[in-house]
Amino acid sequence: MIFRQLFDRESSTYSYLIADPDTKTAILVDSVLEQVEHELKLLEELNLTLKFCLETHIHADHITGTDKLRQLTGCEGIVPTNAAVNCADSFIQDREIIKLGNIEIQAIETKGHTDSHMAYLVNQDRVLTGDALLIRGCGRTDFQNGDAGQLYDSVTNRLFTLADHILVYPAHDYHGRTVSTIGEEKHLNPRFKARDRQSFIELMSNLDLSYPRKMMEAVPANQGCGKV
Amino acid sequence: MIFRQLFDRESSTYSYLIADPDTKTAILVDSVLEQVEHELKLLEELNLTLKFCLETHIHADHITGTDKLRQLTGCEGIVPTNAAVNCADSFIQDREIIKLGNIEIQAIETKGHTDSHMAYLVNQDRVLTGDALLIRGCGRTDFQNGDAGQLYDSVTNRLFTLADHILVYPAHDYHGRTVSTIGEEKHLNPRFKARDRQSFIELMSNLDLSYPRKMMEAVPANQGCGKV
Repeated sequence: MIFRQLFDRESSTYSYLIADPDTKTAILVDSVLEQVEHELKLLEELNLTLKFCLETHIHADHITGTDKLRQLTGCEGIVPTNAAVNCADSFIQDREIIKLGNIEIQAIETKGHTDSHMAYLVNQDRVLTGDALLIRGCGRTDFQNGDAGQLYDSVTNRLFTLADHILVYPAHDYHGRTVSTIGEEKHLNPRFKARDRQSFIELMSNLDLSYPRKMMEAVPANQGCGKV
Repeated sequence: MIFRQLFDRESSTYSYLIADPDTKTAILVDSVLEQVEHELKLLEELNLTLKFCLETHIHADHITGTDKLRQLTGCEGIVPTNAAVNCADSFIQDREIIKLGNIEIQAIETKGHTDSHMAYLVNQDRVLTGDALLIRGCGRTDFQNGDAGQLYDSVTNRLFTLADHILVYPAHDYHGRTVSTIGEEKHLNPRFKARDRQSFIELMSNLDLSYPRKMMEAVPANQGCGKV
């Protein structure tokens, strides 16, 4: 498997290129509009055909590259079920599997940061956690129909029940960290460790964060798969 | 093996934490002074004992965290043979192996960016290439006794002779890329592909780069292992 973590410095977003070296087919997860040229160059260099652009959720901090990539490559845009978008080629459901040669990418419904959100388990050894679970943190729950109780349930019932050794690849990190594991986050994530559901809800309701700078532009754009 | 790539945004430096989960011993490669608190926190969280701080070379763009980490943890500071430093606990030679439980880290002499430089092959499946080989690039050769011909020889004779599948983890990237492979760099790196030694020397002598902002501070500090 070809697996590449790509960082957009402006929004501190990680995108992921996953490709099967035999069939030369690729999928991009959480592409960033400003990085589309870099993404296309890498696909071309590695002689890969982009089949799918997949989103973990409708982002509020950057515009997705899906629509641009779809126009340029003919790939399909896939978003989580129930996402309020008018542009997807298909919606992915909980537990649905996308196959790319021998690679299996399985959706894990993990709502709460937003009201539609999937994590993606790749070949049973790593999970792309989107904004549901970050390294020593998690996504906020105070807009886009976020729900702290639902996020607590998603993380503790759906992600923390995966095997401890599974690598955690988040959609963001703001401190230069690139990867963690399920075991690590279960035991070390300050948002979840030794905290019950009610205490998590209280914590999340008192974060007092300002809105993402690009939110008013990014959310509507992403509801059109990044068409700008 | 625990393997963590850590990014310092200020200098675009990648540091690497490598640890053996059985013996709980760790090594940090190319630590960054400003990141020492994060590095220490991660070591503590993972219950690891830092045995060694290892440098690929004497950096000009950031100050190493080695001296601070040595003071706080008692780890040993190891630098490449011939490095002009007055502070190392030991010097590592070409082909020398550091063992960390079952992990083997083998030095590969790769001078040219500076007049002392090692890449480190980890468990025969990934190589930390320092500034000798970057993703689609290489370190400059116009100070610290850099030598373009020597760098060409180091990369083509010592790194490009490794197996194609070996993962390349550089000391820097400025475009959000985190990893490559030997095969990819052999075929795609514009500094080396289809270029002979003389043409590489000419290319490197015409880059016309300004000096790193922190160079006058970083080089002397790093000659003292980061004592500031």
